[in-house]
Amino acid sequence: MHTTEAELGTLLEHAAQAAPLLAALTPPVRADLLLALADALDEERAPLVAIAQRETGLTETRLNGEVTRTIVQLRLFADETVAGAFLDPRIDAADPDYVLGARPDLRRTHLPLGPVLNFAASNFPFAFSVLGGDSASILAAGCPLIVKAHSGHPELSQATAAVAQRVIADRGLPHGTLQIIFGQDAGVAALRDSRIRAGAFTGSTHGGRILADVAASRPAPIPFYGELGSVNPVFITADAVEERADALGTGYVASVAGSAGQLCTKPGLLFVPAPVADRFITAVRAAADAPDAPLAEHRLLNQRVADTYEVAVQAAQAIDGVDPVIAGSFRRDENGQGWATPTLLRVPLAVLRSHREILADEVFGPFSLVIDVPEDTPLAPLVSEFIEGSLTGTLHLSADEAARPPADDDLHLLVDALATHSGRVLFDGWPTGVAVTPAQQHGGPWPATTLDTSTSVGTAALTRFLRPVAYQDAPPAFLPPELRDHTDAEQGGTTPARSAPGESLSWGTRAAAARSTR
Amino acid sequence: MHTTEAELGTLLEHAAQAAPLLAALTPPVRADLLLALADALDEERAPLVAIAQRETGLTETRLNGEVTRTIVQLRLFADETVAGAFLDPRIDAADPDYVLGARPDLRRTHLPLGPVLNFAASNFPFAFSVLGGDSASILAAGCPLIVKAHSGHPELSQATAAVAQRVIADRGLPHGTLQIIFGQDAGVAALRDSRIRAGAFTGSTHGGRILADVAASRPAPIPFYGELGSVNPVFITADAVEERADALGTGYVASVAGSAGQLCTKPGLLFVPAPVADRFITAVRAAADAPDAPLAEHRLLNQRVADTYEVAVQAAQAIDGVDPVIAGSFRRDENGQGWATPTLLRVPLAVLRSHREILADEVFGPFSLVIDVPEDTPLAPLVSEFIEGSLTGTLHLSADEAARPPADDDLHLLVDALATHSGRVLFDGWPTGVAVTPAQQHGGPWPATTLDTSTSVGTAALTRFLRPVAYQDAPPAFLPPELRDHTDAEQGGTTPARSAPGESLSWGTRAAAARSTR
Repeated sequence: MHTTEAELGTLLEHAAQAAPLLAALTPPVRADLLLALADALDEERAPLVAIAQRETGLTETRLNGEVTRTIVQLRLFADETVAGAFLDPRIDAADPDYVLGARPDLRRTHLPLGPVLNFAASNFPFAFSVLGGDSASILAAGCPLIVKAHSGHPELSQATAAVAQRVIADRGLPHGTLQIIFGQDAGVAALRDSRIRAGAFTGSTHGGRILADVAASRPAPIPFYGELGSVNPVFITADAVEERADALGTGYVASVAGSAGQLCTKPGLLFVPAPVADRFITAVRAAADAPDAPLAEHRLLNQRVADTYEVAVQAAQAIDGVDPVIAGSFRRDENGQGWATPTLLRVPLAVLRSHREILADEVFGPFSLVIDVPEDTPLAPLVSEFIEGSLTGTLHLSADEAARPPADDDLHLLVDALATHSGRVLFDGWPTGVAVTPAQQHGGPWPATTLDTSTSVGTAALTRFLRPVAYQDAPPAFLPPELRDHTDAEQGGTTPARSAPGESLSWGTRAAAARSTR
Repeated sequence: MHTTEAELGTLLEHAAQAAPLLAALTPPVRADLLLALADALDEERAPLVAIAQRETGLTETRLNGEVTRTIVQLRLFADETVAGAFLDPRIDAADPDYVLGARPDLRRTHLPLGPVLNFAASNFPFAFSVLGGDSASILAAGCPLIVKAHSGHPELSQATAAVAQRVIADRGLPHGTLQIIFGQDAGVAALRDSRIRAGAFTGSTHGGRILADVAASRPAPIPFYGELGSVNPVFITADAVEERADALGTGYVASVAGSAGQLCTKPGLLFVPAPVADRFITAVRAAADAPDAPLAEHRLLNQRVADTYEVAVQAAQAIDGVDPVIAGSFRRDENGQGWATPTLLRVPLAVLRSHREILADEVFGPFSLVIDVPEDTPLAPLVSEFIEGSLTGTLHLSADEAARPPADDDLHLLVDALATHSGRVLFDGWPTGVAVTPAQQHGGPWPATTLDTSTSVGTAALTRFLRPVAYQDAPPAFLPPELRDHTDAEQGGTTPARSAPGESLSWGTRAAAARSTR
């Protein structure tokens, strides 16, 4: 399936025409659309999951969970849209006596950027595809959406888009609200087109970099939000291993094996102190031998994932000093598809250091390295040495270590280093499984993302598709609703400036109240 | 003056070393530094203004005003730092019953990006130079600052940096807090260096684009916030001309002539309905003939500005159908410096259309075009036709037009078009003179800025130099202060969740209260 140049031209024109219409919709109308999309996805769940299973090899349980996540995500963005805090409305009253001379009335809000191109992910055929998190935040922001379908699940993408387009047509919204394109060439051509005002992407560092360069080299450059590769380092203290080696072993295996390791937050490097490394590895092996261990063979998502995985795992295994913790398998079926069970290897720190170009990069799939760290090695410098940028960084502490007061000790330096090199710092947990909430941060320094000043998961994700605009001395009739003065009558006797954050005001007003400098 | 490669290496190392130290400073300590810099600048005002006058040709009055603005700006950022709202702290309590499965405790704040390189502007030797708005927001964010001095005022830059460095040394802050470099090569080399984590720039579209491309093509790309070229269209209705032609004429002349037109917000294209064009132009000429008209000859900032100005004005004047409104002058003095008085030309819309490559681009200097628009021409499409992106867009209405209720009429479509193509929409005012306040927006679609999702003036400017980080299930001792729970005792009996926005809480807590989803 490939979108032709002529088809693309028509699609882009539809998107451009839809832009002012969608921008003019009030947030409640945008929210209604998101809710209707969630409902429609729920209704079509069974047939869509069946297609996804066939196209991706992911399990029905996993895919059903993903659909639920996608539905919850759409509803959460609907709530966020109505709440209106993302508009961050600010009002500076005119001040004739301002220290720098008379100051005008200034009111600032956020407007949608315009048509956005979203490159769907291979590993989340629902949650980061046609109606996934990026799409939800683009629509919540009021931008027309063009989804570049991932080649790994074209039929599912087409079917999901058809569901969405029915909802859009039923509500009388413009055809250009949500459209889908197929093929790499069409994706690149769309990204180059002046009508596209931003790009979103979830995928490999290699592919993401090519597209980021396209976005940056346009006559008019646009923001490109790419979520790329991540190693997700984990550190475990000796005390934590002594306290709960079995739980740590079980958690590690589950986190590496889940979704066949094809998650951007899969822990790729686990650092454990040498004196307790044997104890930890024994626990990992015990977890792998347990009757309910998640070590079933899985089909990898697509040819490219399988090829890269096979080469990377073989290269790592061939290095002197690298020992198996769990010896996984990899094979091809009669269609050339790759199938794998988890491979976990043990690597002394010195070997990681001498073979970092092979061992320290992300391997997408059910693969992870346990790094044996000599006693008394300062930990924070290891983060700078091996992690350029990562989505997450994890630290497992003992209960005693967690309860100690703040200090300038090695553990606090390690946490600072993890915060400097990643977007989410976890304690006593595993990085896979990303909650979709207001405080979530899914993004980190390059190569985890192309722009680490934003997030691609959580409600803050929608701010990526907005730009601030200020109105100076505007007559009320020309102001967006969230910037107008509200009379006592409209607010049921409560003026914005006196409202507490928790009260239920109309959208926009609440944030305006919090920010007003009058 | 040129910074050598060896010197640059040392400077970058100092900046990198300062990064964790500055990040660890509490906001009140950062604010104290900004206040001390403001005080020091005020104390050294007279000698610095004398150097600036000699180097830039700007008047003493203008430069003194600029120093005051710079001081106020530093103090405003100090306030903003202490208030802490820019940290946007968000707290999602753990939820064992969350619809997608048990949810961890997640707390999100913003950390400084690390060392930032700021390319100073030619036209604001104080307000957008060593201690200008970008520098203030970089320091407020907690980032080490390297200023690339503008070649138009090297001695002033050196002297200002010396003042700042004394303040920094006196307070025992790291040497790498604020450093200065000279020369284009050093600037580009620094922007390429992996230790630099963001760039800020104020200058020409040509220069800004080269640097934006450098930032985007690094092995690890970084955000580059460039404030480039802007045409700043102005529309005046026939009713407004009939109501107050004289005031409009005076305002226009003053806005074009101020600072010899060397402002990024100078109105470059003014659209006026043909039936009242004569009336308006008569008023402009009367304003120019007034005894206090601001038409004195000024030296242009530097050779490059003078060269570009001379060529652009001659090219415009040579076009058939272009008529002088005010015939300005341009000459070279014995040192080759350019001196100019304002030139305003009248251009029929059809001529603008047929010569847009000469007439529709920004001309930096005291030059502007009055465009004669045939009666009944729809106005909104003119914005899309001639303005790709602009810092500002202005509309002058009559009192009656301003008082009318909202409608889908031509004027509202025009305002929507101005909002789509610019960052600030003004009514009945002139775009020069940019208030530094929380609601200010100084940034617009390319080529006005390289990233129109941010502002370079106003307190929101400091968010450009921050990145979000979430902490998951963190023990309190490992949380940044703004993410910790606050006990009743600490808050004097007030828990965050019950606090109203106006109350005086410790920094961070206020915003946390507004955002907490517990």
